[in-house]
Amino acid sequence: MFLGRVVGTLVATQKEPSLDGLKFLVVRRLSVANEDERGYVVAADAVGAGLGEVVMVATGSSARQTRQTDKRPCDAVIMAIVDSWEVDGQEKYNKGTSP
Amino acid sequence: MFLGRVVGTLVATQKEPSLDGLKFLVVRRLSVANEDERGYVVAADAVGAGLGEVVMVATGSSARQTRQTDKRPCDAVIMAIVDSWEVDGQEKYNKGTSP
Amino acid sequence: MFLGRVVGTLVATQKEPSLDGLKFLVVRRLSVANEDERGYVVAADAVGAGLGEVVMVATGSSARQTRQTDKRPCDAVIMAIVDSWEVDGQEKYNKGTSP
Amino acid sequence: MFLGRVVGTLVATQKEPSLDGLKFLVVRRLSVANEDERGYVVAADAVGAGLGEVVMVATGSSARQTRQTDKRPCDAVIMAIVDSWEVDGQEKYNKGTSP
Amino acid sequence: MFLGRVVGTLVATQKEPSLDGLKFLVVRRLSVANEDERGYVVAADAVGAGLGEVVMVATGSSARQTRQTDKRPCDAVIMAIVDSWEVDGQEKYNKGTSP
Repeated sequence: MFLGRVVGTLVATQKEPSLDGLKFLVVRRLSVANEDERGYVVAADAVGAGLGEVVMVATGSSARQTRQTDKRPCDAVIMAIVDSWEVDGQEKYNKGTSP
Repeated sequence: MFLGRVVGTLVATQKEPSLDGLKFLVVRRLSVANEDERGYVVAADAVGAGLGEVVMVATGSSARQTRQTDKRPCDAVIMAIVDSWEVDGQEKYNKGTSP
Repeated sequence: MFLGRVVGTLVATQKEPSLDGLKFLVVRRLSVANEDERGYVVAADAVGAGLGEVVMVATGSSARQTRQTDKRPCDAVIMAIVDSWEVDGQEKYNKGTSP
Repeated sequence: MFLGRVVGTLVATQKEPSLDGLKFLVVRRLSVANEDERGYVVAADAVGAGLGEVVMVATGSSARQTRQTDKRPCDAVIMAIVDSWEVDGQEKYNKGTSP
Repeated sequence: MFLGRVVGTLVATQKEPSLDGLKFLVVRRLSVANEDERGYVVAADAVGAGLGEVVMVATGSSARQTRQTDKRPCDAVIMAIVDSWEVDGQEKYNKGTSP
């Protein structure tokens, strides 16, 4: 999976019918040092993520392994909102304290 | 999923029989800032997208999760026509007003 | 899917038994401007493509959605021979006239 | 599969319910020369890997082929802890002796 | 699929149980000009490939379409040992004569 920050929302009314009701969020990729990276994805939201939240994204067929995305043409899903992570013993992100 | 603009059409008569009737569109990738990016894909159209429209594309096995592409050798599908998206509270694209 | 030109053939006799009878072609990637790109793939041929022909390639699990590649360890298939495509109203390739 | 070193842990309490109980580890990619590479993934742990251990990671739908990750929105799994590897007859890593 | 040369072997005893008995080989990517490229993969061996041999590798879910890798967390498999390939009518590799 990769780490990302929810930076925006997307609206699409003319779409594959099975996607009705699914929320689409714009997610910017983050490095493990919690810095913005160039890439982005549009991901379906399966956990109620909000703007600015740091999340974990699964892609490919794994993106369809949630109730909301099962059997839908969806290749990226937000499957977790991150509390914290550390690298080499150093905390890089904490939901309560990080900007 | 990624964002793209429909920039062209493709015709192929000699093909895997299960692809008959499927429309192939050339889609140029867009950044979240709504700028052209280098990459492109040829995608099957599942929502009636037209030239110049900004669309959302799903790839991999997820591209086969529509009635038109089910069980077909197709790894990219246009699954939505985008109305609008915003990033950090700023609208980056709006079907009604954006060029 | 991506666009490519068949530039060569490959022979492999010692292989997974289910691949017997499958033709392997070397395909160089093309840009939408119909220029050679760096990348290549070895793809199974499902439509009788010949050397020099411009083709469309599907990858991943979608590559197994043809009679010839079903249930075989094959992640790239030539699923169409291209007649023509245009971008921004300009024809970039035509089987009858393009070099 | 690719080679990586476990460099950190990640905690996420608000997530897809099927992920409960799954351990998430931050894995930095390694080259075959056993040097750190830029990329990272967050992977589910299926073999009890610890911090600093060199592991093998499978991605995509193959990441769901373990008891812990089956049918879950998980696209990367640690499926082996590496004892050793050699390239061109030269040992590049050995669990017992390498730093 | 991509072309590669078997450059090494890997040993991992602590692993997902379903992987027992599977041979892991280090494969360096080759260009169509038969030159070493930067990338590598660790692949399962389904055809008895040996060190120095030039092989074809399938990735993703296609890597599980062999008896040895079926239903296992394995995303890259050596599915053929290459005899020869040519590009633009010029032989780039021949098992009998190439270095």
